[in-house]
Amino acid sequence: MLQIDILSVVPELMESMVGHSILKRAQAKGLLTIHLISLRKWAINSYGQVDDSQYGGGAGMVLRIEPLYQAITELQALKPYDLIILTSPCGQTFNQKMANKFSLYQRILIICGHYKGVDERLKLLFNIVEISIGDFVLTGGEIPAILMADAIGRLLPGVMNDETSALFDSFQDDLLAPPLYTKPAEFLGLKVPEILLQGDPKKIEAWRFEQSLEKTQMLRPDLLKDNFE
Amino acid sequence: MLQIDILSVVPELMESMVGHSILKRAQAKGLLTIHLISLRKWAINSYGQVDDSQYGGGAGMVLRIEPLYQAITELQALKPYDLIILTSPCGQTFNQKMANKFSLYQRILIICGHYKGVDERLKLLFNIVEISIGDFVLTGGEIPAILMADAIGRLLPGVMNDETSALFDSFQDDLLAPPLYTKPAEFLGLKVPEILLQGDPKKIEAWRFEQSLEKTQMLRPDLLKDNFE
Repeated sequence: MLQIDILSVVPELMESMVGHSILKRAQAKGLLTIHLISLRKWAINSYGQVDDSQYGGGAGMVLRIEPLYQAITELQALKPYDLIILTSPCGQTFNQKMANKFSLYQRILIICGHYKGVDERLKLLFNIVEISIGDFVLTGGEIPAILMADAIGRLLPGVMNDETSALFDSFQDDLLAPPLYTKPAEFLGLKVPEILLQGDPKKIEAWRFEQSLEKTQMLRPDLLKDNFE
Repeated sequence: MLQIDILSVVPELMESMVGHSILKRAQAKGLLTIHLISLRKWAINSYGQVDDSQYGGGAGMVLRIEPLYQAITELQALKPYDLIILTSPCGQTFNQKMANKFSLYQRILIICGHYKGVDERLKLLFNIVEISIGDFVLTGGEIPAILMADAIGRLLPGVMNDETSALFDSFQDDLLAPPLYTKPAEFLGLKVPEILLQGDPKKIEAWRFEQSLEKTQMLRPDLLKDNFE
């Protein structure tokens, strides 16, 4: 049973994501709980203020330290987290190995950066892992938080209909997944590879591995390099 | 005016994301339109079927080619797309340069991969760019689609309150953003760096550049290497 708490200035942004698809199913099965928590609960005044302008000038607001400090302290007091993540473009880049690792935890807090970011001093007060989804900038950490919840949640045993399915995904063995084909066998003159129709499991397995390897060599040689270095 | 059409098996997943924050604001200002389109509109039968099991066996369903082919053909006929994206773990990795480039387009279609993926033959029928958000597997392409819409949408002139804000983000100059500080000047004994309080714009700018460079060298030396190679 994994609990993911997501602390955000705009938790409502994530509601539809949490209420559908795999995250809904995982929660319905009692394997995952996701709490969307509003940072404004710890606002510094009755206007719900949680941010302020930057010291030193410059465009964009910064999340103040007091609401974050109080929120984390209060949430930690209930039960300590195995991991506190801050979404940030400066963090380590999220990958499948992290998803695998995090799926073994019981309690994770994800703090969504918003506006320009958070007051730097927060990182001195808690053991926080900064994680980035990639080399691009978003309005806030809400999409990254839900993305991580999805990547982690689908790995929990029992969440997916067929447990073997996740094992054949891209990246699980540092290879891209082989090409997929389904009915009809022919469409606008384009045919499904003969080998898949013949139904010899050994040949199909060998073909798929070969296709995976070829595809990875062509599109993502860096994955193979990382693996065999 | 940019139009982003998102074709998905579960468009409702994205509703709260489109109805809040920057994407809501961009749409309210008439700078961006996002259409969430259900692929089931082109289902192969009255049960709404759009997927089928894999040829060659294996867990997980695959999106059939006919609904995708018909949807894209019909949507294209209204007005051609400048870009058709398929979200896929096998694609090129999305980055800020792509976001910048795509923000200059007028009409983008994002096809959300779902279940195990889409029938490979789709890629032979249209000029499709496969894009991945990173090296991890998600339940579907819906979160990546919204992520791209957010990264692109916030760059449209007039969307952000302060247009200079986006220019100082991480990655816009291949450097991570400098640390941020806001009120209070002291919290639990932790002080804001003196230089930011003194208010000399030249000194602050030099300090920020130095901090950015140092942070990038320490955390993401690969960004600097890419830049100066």
